[in-house]
Amino acid sequence: MTDQPASPSRAAATPAAPRADVGVARPLPVGAVRLLPTGVLGAWQDRNAQATIPHCIDQLEAAGNLDNYRRLVGDIDPATPYRGFIFADSDVHKVIEAVAWEIGRSGTTAFDGWLDEVIDLLARAQEPDGYLMTAIQAGLRERWADLENAHELYVLGHMVQAAVALQRCAGRDDLLRVALRFVDLVDATFGPDGERVGICGHPEIETALVELYRETGEQRHLALAQHMIDLRGTGTLVAGGLGPQYFQDHEPVRQARTVAGHAVRQLYLAAGATDVYLETGEAELLDAMHDQWVDAHERKMYISGAFGSRHRDEAFGSAYELPSDRAYAETCATIADLHWSWRMFLADGGSRYGDVVEREIHNALAASLDAGGTRFFYANPLQSRPDKHSEESAPRERLPWYPCACCPPNIARAVAQMGAYVASVTDSEIAVHQFADADIDLPEALGSGTVRVRTRYPEDGVVEVTLDGTAPAGARLALRVPAWSTSTTVDGRAADPDPDGYLRVPLADGARLELDVAPRWTVAHPRVDAVRGCVALERGPLVYAIEQADMPDGVEVDDVRVHTDSPPRVTEDGVTVSAVAVPPPSALYATLGSTAPAPARPVTVTAIPFATWGNRTPGAMRVWLPTAD
Amino acid sequence: MTDQPASPSRAAATPAAPRADVGVARPLPVGAVRLLPTGVLGAWQDRNAQATIPHCIDQLEAAGNLDNYRRLVGDIDPATPYRGFIFADSDVHKVIEAVAWEIGRSGTTAFDGWLDEVIDLLARAQEPDGYLMTAIQAGLRERWADLENAHELYVLGHMVQAAVALQRCAGRDDLLRVALRFVDLVDATFGPDGERVGICGHPEIETALVELYRETGEQRHLALAQHMIDLRGTGTLVAGGLGPQYFQDHEPVRQARTVAGHAVRQLYLAAGATDVYLETGEAELLDAMHDQWVDAHERKMYISGAFGSRHRDEAFGSAYELPSDRAYAETCATIADLHWSWRMFLADGGSRYGDVVEREIHNALAASLDAGGTRFFYANPLQSRPDKHSEESAPRERLPWYPCACCPPNIARAVAQMGAYVASVTDSEIAVHQFADADIDLPEALGSGTVRVRTRYPEDGVVEVTLDGTAPAGARLALRVPAWSTSTTVDGRAADPDPDGYLRVPLADGARLELDVAPRWTVAHPRVDAVRGCVALERGPLVYAIEQADMPDGVEVDDVRVHTDSPPRVTEDGVTVSAVAVPPPSALYATLGSTAPAPARPVTVTAIPFATWGNRTPGAMRVWLPTAD
Repeated sequence: MTDQPASPSRAAATPAAPRADVGVARPLPVGAVRLLPTGVLGAWQDRNAQATIPHCIDQLEAAGNLDNYRRLVGDIDPATPYRGFIFADSDVHKVIEAVAWEIGRSGTTAFDGWLDEVIDLLARAQEPDGYLMTAIQAGLRERWADLENAHELYVLGHMVQAAVALQRCAGRDDLLRVALRFVDLVDATFGPDGERVGICGHPEIETALVELYRETGEQRHLALAQHMIDLRGTGTLVAGGLGPQYFQDHEPVRQARTVAGHAVRQLYLAAGATDVYLETGEAELLDAMHDQWVDAHERKMYISGAFGSRHRDEAFGSAYELPSDRAYAETCATIADLHWSWRMFLADGGSRYGDVVEREIHNALAASLDAGGTRFFYANPLQSRPDKHSEESAPRERLPWYPCACCPPNIARAVAQMGAYVASVTDSEIAVHQFADADIDLPEALGSGTVRVRTRYPEDGVVEVTLDGTAPAGARLALRVPAWSTSTTVDGRAADPDPDGYLRVPLADGARLELDVAPRWTVAHPRVDAVRGCVALERGPLVYAIEQADMPDGVEVDDVRVHTDSPPRVTEDGVTVSAVAVPPPSALYATLGSTAPAPARPVTVTAIPFATWGNRTPGAMRVWLPTAD
Repeated sequence: MTDQPASPSRAAATPAAPRADVGVARPLPVGAVRLLPTGVLGAWQDRNAQATIPHCIDQLEAAGNLDNYRRLVGDIDPATPYRGFIFADSDVHKVIEAVAWEIGRSGTTAFDGWLDEVIDLLARAQEPDGYLMTAIQAGLRERWADLENAHELYVLGHMVQAAVALQRCAGRDDLLRVALRFVDLVDATFGPDGERVGICGHPEIETALVELYRETGEQRHLALAQHMIDLRGTGTLVAGGLGPQYFQDHEPVRQARTVAGHAVRQLYLAAGATDVYLETGEAELLDAMHDQWVDAHERKMYISGAFGSRHRDEAFGSAYELPSDRAYAETCATIADLHWSWRMFLADGGSRYGDVVEREIHNALAASLDAGGTRFFYANPLQSRPDKHSEESAPRERLPWYPCACCPPNIARAVAQMGAYVASVTDSEIAVHQFADADIDLPEALGSGTVRVRTRYPEDGVVEVTLDGTAPAGARLALRVPAWSTSTTVDGRAADPDPDGYLRVPLADGARLELDVAPRWTVAHPRVDAVRGCVALERGPLVYAIEQADMPDGVEVDDVRVHTDSPPRVTEDGVTVSAVAVPPPSALYATLGSTAPAPARPVTVTAIPFATWGNRTPGAMRVWLPTAD
């Protein structure tokens, strides 16, 4: 630990001392990737800094999260009731983490006063033995008495992540000192040599502890993470009505070949297990992660890059169970999968991970926010029916905050650290995974200077990459070619990617990559019953949707049938599609052929990026469009 | 009240003193309809008496329901913990009610000893002021402190129904005396002139109170029911996370035009409101019930006659939200709808109500039981995926009992009283709604003697109805013609039903009705996204399903595509269907046209009645079959 100013030597999910025999790529240090405001991702980060983070800070105050600390230390009347869900502290931690990444990105000092106040509060609220969770200290549960539901280690995990980010990005260790005292207590209590056996009902601390290890270099932090991975699935948690799958305690992590249960829990757990692999190189763990990743992304992922088909337990469903209307698709699940898929890329390589990250960023994550950056979706369904009524975590419109406010601050931290997913390096190449205006500093091994990425992506498919500096002969530039780009050129010449999905050119030369972003129709696996007979419109990385606000007079979203043989056309307002509107019959069930088909009316409908839906009059929306054929 | 033996003058949902200006038909008295063991319904009732009811009695003992009373009265150690959900008493009441209807049907005395013991227990456990609910008496909640969740009036409702049935069928009033004391307390507390304003979070008592009024003739029992209908939807209940829809408190009953929230609650409420209409003739109430019934049955009913699309709140979904795999389709919801639809028929007339009752009895209700009558489904999905894992109330296979055991005893009482739905009378006709071997005694106004129904239905479509007795000139026999029967004959001649869906002949002549039970393909409304591109196989009243146990080697249920242009063929084992098996691709999403269609393998698959699925090796099942076209 250090009191020195920011030493940007480590980035999110950076193996601290990358082992030569583990993983295939390394992340770049904090600050080395600068997303520019001229690009879609950099502009988003600016909006995050200007709107989303300040909004989150205001909401923490309004929702009482900070008063939960103040009442403990006597800054306000100690009789003030505790407010929020039991894990409300984690909202505070996530906002701190968002601020930390924003400092790392922009060097802002705008939040320093807030950080000083809040970290001081946390430090004062901490108990002498290191314990710190306001809900438990307020008496909502006995300490460690309900590991299944109390979220104690989950809350600590978020504190650790915030503390590590602050250390990395702002060089301040005040929160890290607080977190380490709590980690010491947890290690003594639940560690490999601890007094008790126990894991958290909500995985999260595992990935946090590996990040802590990367910061501290202390082997016991890695060992504690691994111990918690080892215990998961051995039945140490008492299953409730939702069964042991709910918290992935139904089978050991290394034996599981499928993802199951609460989607956010499963995906954070997988990120943590992959983190452990990245530090230990344990083949059995990677093998399990590999199969689980395929199951999650080839059988249980929404086209928007969202996860979780079920409301009841916020859970993954069966393979191919992907209803559009009842998609739970929690924002936090997409964010958790960003963590996991990025780590899987570092471990495994290949463009499919970047393809997924791109899908998530441009669709599910982008749709979770309104245009102004201060209203949020918790659930992100792919269809909103005309008579939908708002539910607790699945409202009809985005809300400024939620009683369970896990998602908004998670969005803030994910956007602030988005630069982490843009590029990676090996000893001989720099790879660009996500396309947006960016300046990327070369690490020493690859020369000196800055790789400049300039593009209007995803508006068009041209990505110009130049090296402003020098690179040794043999140093390469690798550019991800998304699987959907069927005709790709480099410097005007048709180019096929390498088997791993990347195009490679000499780094010194740079490249003008052109991807094919013509609109295209996408079909789902035939076992996805929910969207049989439908297509989705995609363009580049963007998934499109039709919304009631764009429908011609008298046409309802659910009665549109698209012509897939007529090419969609890009216009100012979106993509227009040739279709028919079919008036619905009245009978719910009818004998096949017993009724004459209703006369269809030709219509042209405009589709908009799914990411932008719900910014006008609330109404029906759907991504998957029945075909007229 | 009376201590006289059974006086079978009243039947289920019989307006006690039918008003000339209310309703269009009257039920027959208990005992007047005898379903014979040679028919499918009578055989089911025998199995109910021999297997299901005794099994339920055993399970009440094993699950501790009776001990909950014994501990209160000191028959066992008072320190014995209360067992089961808060509404466990209602399981006892429903089993008593099943026994009562069974006595009414068969005159059995086999359960008299059990009844004596249990009713004595209830009487002794009752508090001096009439209160009786073991969970509250055990201290799980304060009395009346949590009307939203404590189910106190719901539990009383079931007690009242059991008491009325016992009075009607067995002429014993011991339970009725207990129930009336509790009703008096509720009336004084929550009645029109009561001390407090309050309704139950779970509607059920409304319909029970109208039945009680039919038995006692006491106006205050009807007034109490009406008062509770009037208060519903006025916000007297504190809504939790599931919102006020959950217990239909979001809008007044007379204003609601759609069904919403917890399906069982909604359907019992509607049955109660319709019961109130049947006694008051209030047009506004019938008008609302009419629209709600159309919404429930033309927009929110599964083809099996099941209700409830959502697991989270056991609720109705949006219009046309009818997923097969995640159908909650609670058995109790189908039973509640039997109550409602029967009452709507009495109020409104027309074959659509009998059509729905038939669909429910032969499909959703029948499927909720195994072949032996002692294992039950709580949720009745229309698709079981190959990797389905068991959930609390939605297990992969039928279970002998549930922690929340509302369904099994509800099945027992529904089957025991099934004769009530078979026939009705007016001053000039007797109508037969459900077809099974039965003897039906004529009421005096229609002559004397017995109407005999003989049929192999639904195996074939021939129904012979003869009058063994005499009928006045002008007395008619009305026979329901199901909407699916496209070529119907009477005595060998083509016959079209009247506009209300009934064929009418002179009662003295009888009729040989022949319905068209050739297998047919059924399609769903195009807004039912969940089954787009699929057909269901039906035959007569039966919905069919394909099950993994019947698949040819190497063929999975979910990969079958049926040829709808090739007529299904009835065989010994079921109905065989010409189809292809299409090997699934690996990609979850693909650009339209980018992959060659997999070679399809012609197969013949056997479909079985949905009611009989799950009686062999557990495996995948589906009702809605994608077409090969």
